[in-house]
Amino acid sequence: MAAEKVFDVIFDSEGVCVGKLRNEVTNTAHKPFQVSRMLATDEGTFQGGEDTAPTPLEFFLTGLVGCLMTQIRVFAKKKKIPIGDLTVSCRAHWEAVADPDMPYAARPAGFVIDISLDSDAPEEAVRALLDGAKRACFVEATLAQKNDIQHNLRLNSAEPVAV
Amino acid sequence: MAAEKVFDVIFDSEGVCVGKLRNEVTNTAHKPFQVSRMLATDEGTFQGGEDTAPTPLEFFLTGLVGCLMTQIRVFAKKKKIPIGDLTVSCRAHWEAVADPDMPYAARPAGFVIDISLDSDAPEEAVRALLDGAKRACFVEATLAQKNDIQHNLRLNSAEPVAV
Repeated sequence: MAAEKVFDVIFDSEGVCVGKLRNEVTNTAHKPFQVSRMLATDEGTFQGGEDTAPTPLEFFLTGLVGCLMTQIRVFAKKKKIPIGDLTVSCRAHWEAVADPDMPYAARPAGFVIDISLDSDAPEEAVRALLDGAKRACFVEATLAQKNDIQHNLRLNSAEPVAV
Repeated sequence: MAAEKVFDVIFDSEGVCVGKLRNEVTNTAHKPFQVSRMLATDEGTFQGGEDTAPTPLEFFLTGLVGCLMTQIRVFAKKKKIPIGDLTVSCRAHWEAVADPDMPYAARPAGFVIDISLDSDAPEEAVRALLDGAKRACFVEATLAQKNDIQHNLRLNSAEPVAV
């Protein structure tokens, strides 16, 4: 039986092009809280950008590390597990591989996450906390499964079609 | 036979705790370019944070949308496919579901990406461009597969152990 739903998390993000490779992405949270803010990405001159903002992968990894850290801290408090210093590091590796039609294709090659923390709680309780935080981290749970990603194309203002 | 590697993409990210739920994440790109910058995440007061920075999911989704847009623009140029206005939107849905030990667990419920663009190129060429950009987007390729994620715990400065 599927686990009972506790709440939904729903976001809309819309990116528009500005400058050579700068993108301005407005993220709107609908549930479980409401907020709308813009974050800009760019590329360095190496890639043809103008270096006006961090690159997309910096945002992606900040989301991963930040989400896991937040879950550890929030759940530690809820489970009354005292934690002191906490550092979460992630080494991310991708390979760009040959592609028949394009300059390259992306091949994710794994993530190593190092969690350093101080706690007077028994090691068993700390491990249970980390296991729970991994299960509850929306980003890590996304990376841990093959996701359903649908694409629609609206070409020259025609009706959108699935692509 | 595995596709030939063209280049590596390697990042290290290190997050430290600041304030109630603020995390400061320093992302260092090692390959194929070098840069190191800090991005901060926080939560709203609803979640016990202080709202000093965007939430981790805003960073994550900015990474996804920004990476795909960048690949579309860079590959359009390389393949000499003229594109005008480009907007990429993403609706992301997760569910928080009941968990035996923790307040909840995360269940990703899919992503819908709408791409709106203007181009004088044949529709077939535009579709091939989008297919190639999807394959080359490091974030989308990560979401499209089940990833290898290792965790190590360093508790109270002891030697790190796999958890």
